[in-house]
Amino acid sequence: MNISLSILGCHSATPRANAHPSAQILQIKNQLYLIDCGEGTQTQIRKYGFSFAKINHIFISHLHGDHFFGLIGLISTMSLLNRKQALHIYAPEGLREIITMQMEISQSKIVFPLHFYVLKDKKSKLILDTKDVQVKTIPLKHRIYANGFLFQEKEGLRKLNIEAVKKYPEIETCDYHNLKKGKDFIQKDGRVISNAILTFPPKKTRSYAYCSDTAYKPEISDIIKGVDMLYHESTFLSDREDLAYITGHSTALQAGNIAKAAQVKHLLLGHYSSRYRDITAFQKEAQTVFRNTSLAKEGETFIIE
Amino acid sequence: MNISLSILGCHSATPRANAHPSAQILQIKNQLYLIDCGEGTQTQIRKYGFSFAKINHIFISHLHGDHFFGLIGLISTMSLLNRKQALHIYAPEGLREIITMQMEISQSKIVFPLHFYVLKDKKSKLILDTKDVQVKTIPLKHRIYANGFLFQEKEGLRKLNIEAVKKYPEIETCDYHNLKKGKDFIQKDGRVISNAILTFPPKKTRSYAYCSDTAYKPEISDIIKGVDMLYHESTFLSDREDLAYITGHSTALQAGNIAKAAQVKHLLLGHYSSRYRDITAFQKEAQTVFRNTSLAKEGETFIIE
Repeated sequence: MNISLSILGCHSATPRANAHPSAQILQIKNQLYLIDCGEGTQTQIRKYGFSFAKINHIFISHLHGDHFFGLIGLISTMSLLNRKQALHIYAPEGLREIITMQMEISQSKIVFPLHFYVLKDKKSKLILDTKDVQVKTIPLKHRIYANGFLFQEKEGLRKLNIEAVKKYPEIETCDYHNLKKGKDFIQKDGRVISNAILTFPPKKTRSYAYCSDTAYKPEISDIIKGVDMLYHESTFLSDREDLAYITGHSTALQAGNIAKAAQVKHLLLGHYSSRYRDITAFQKEAQTVFRNTSLAKEGETFIIE
Repeated sequence: MNISLSILGCHSATPRANAHPSAQILQIKNQLYLIDCGEGTQTQIRKYGFSFAKINHIFISHLHGDHFFGLIGLISTMSLLNRKQALHIYAPEGLREIITMQMEISQSKIVFPLHFYVLKDKKSKLILDTKDVQVKTIPLKHRIYANGFLFQEKEGLRKLNIEAVKKYPEIETCDYHNLKKGKDFIQKDGRVISNAILTFPPKKTRSYAYCSDTAYKPEISDIIKGVDMLYHESTFLSDREDLAYITGHSTALQAGNIAKAAQVKHLLLGHYSSRYRDITAFQKEAQTVFRNTSLAKEGETFIIE
C-alpha cells in the first residue's frame, strides 16, 4: 500500500475561498495523520472524503492561528459525532488550555479520550512510535516555537521466495510467518536453511518531512537527509528575501537549497503568501537549484512511492 | 436605502461544504452588522464580497461553537490587515477570555481597539444606540445563556413637501435641514408655518429580529411584536418535537406560531439539522400557521422593505 499526502490547505495567513490555511493528511496504511489544522480544516476533510474516524493523531507545528484555529471545531464535531476512540495531539504548550477553556465556557463535553503531548524540546525527538511508523520532530526557526515532523515508515515483513521455499518439502504454510519475520528454518535433521535463501528483503520504507513555518535553517538537512518527500514552506520568492528573514519564513530558492543539501527525492512547496497571484513562479525559482520540485495545491494528493 | 440581510451560514452544529454554521450580515445604511460567527465566517464574508472594514459591531447569541468558532480567525485577519478602527463585540461572558488567551499564546497582537460588552441580563436590554439604529437583546431559552437581537431602524428626517415650500418665498435652501428635522418655520412678520404643512412624515422605520438558538418561548412575541422580518431557528420538524425540547431548539411549526403570535411581516427559517435532506419541508410546516415564511439559504440576501 502506498503512502499518500493530501493537501487540504497550503496558503499562508488569512483564509479565502479556495485558499485555505495549512492542513495536510498523510495516509499510511489505514491511518490518517493530520498535520496542522487551520480554520476550515474539518470542512476540507469532509469535502475531500476523508473519514474523521481514521484520524487518531494530529500534529500541530506551532501556535499561529493559520495552523490551529480549525482544531477546536474539529474536536467539537468529533464529539458531536459520538467518537469513542482516543485522539492524540502533538503540539506546543498552550493548545490544551485553548481547547479546554473553550469547551468549558461553551459547557460542552468531549466524549472521547483526548491526549495532549506537549512539544518543547529544541532538539529532534521521537514523539510517536507505532508498528507502522515513527514520527520525529524537526526543530524549526520561526517567530514562535515551531517544529516540523518527520514520518518514517517502519520496515515491513520480508517477502517469501516461493520458488526457493518449494525446494524444501519440510517447510509448511504455518512456517511462512516466521520466515517473513526473518527467522532461519531448522530442518528435522538439524541443518539450518538461512532466511536469506528463502526470502527477499522487505519493501523499501518511505519517509515524509513537513517543514512549516520556518526561516531558512540549513541544519534541518541532517534530520531530513534523503527523505522521499519534503514539504518545505516557501512563503516568499527571492524578491522578498528580506521580508522572509524578518518574518521567519523562507523563499522558494531557500526551500530548494534545503532539498538539495538534504538530497531528498521530491520537494513540495507551499504556504504561499497571498501577495503572489501566480504560484508557478515558486516552482521555477526552486527548480533553479532542485529539479524535482512540485507545488502543493489544495485538493491534490501526492503518492510517495 | 434598503435594509438587507445576507445569510453566510444557516445550518446547525457541524460545518460541511455549502452548509456553514450560523452567521449573517445585516446591512443598514453603510454599516454591516455581523450576527453570530461560526467557523469559516471570514471566508464567507470574502466569498460574498463584503468589506471587513464596514463591520464595526458583532453580535454573538451564545457560546456554542457553531456560533462563535469563526471569531478568533476573523479578528486575527482584521489585525493582519492592519485595521485601525474599533471593533465592538456583544456576547455572553467568557468570549473576551477565549479571544485574549489565544492571541496571547500565539504571541499575536490585536492592532486595533477591541471592545467587549458582556451580556448577562435575563431581561431585554438596549445594547447599542447609534444615529441609525437601536439594538436590543431578546432573551432566549437554550441549554446555555443565549440572546437573540432586535434591530430597530431609527426614524430618519422628514421629507420636504416642495410644492408647499415653494408657496413661501421666505423659505431658503439653507432652511431645509431644519424643516426636515421637524422644526416649524417662523416668518419675518412672526407668523408660524407649521412643519406639518411643509413636510411629509419620514420613511417608515424597519426592524429585524434574530432568534437563534432557542426552544419554543412564546414570551418573546412581546419583544418582537410586528417586526418586518423575524429569523427564527427551526432545527427540527414537528416529527422530532421531543428532541427539540430536550436540546433547547424549536420546530418549524413552533417558529411559525411565534411569527403568528408576534404578527411579524415575514418569517425566515434556519439552523436546520443535518438530518433533513430536503429543507422545503421546514417551509411547508411553518406555512400551515404562518403564510409568509421563507427559507434562509447560504449566499442569499433578503431585502427588508
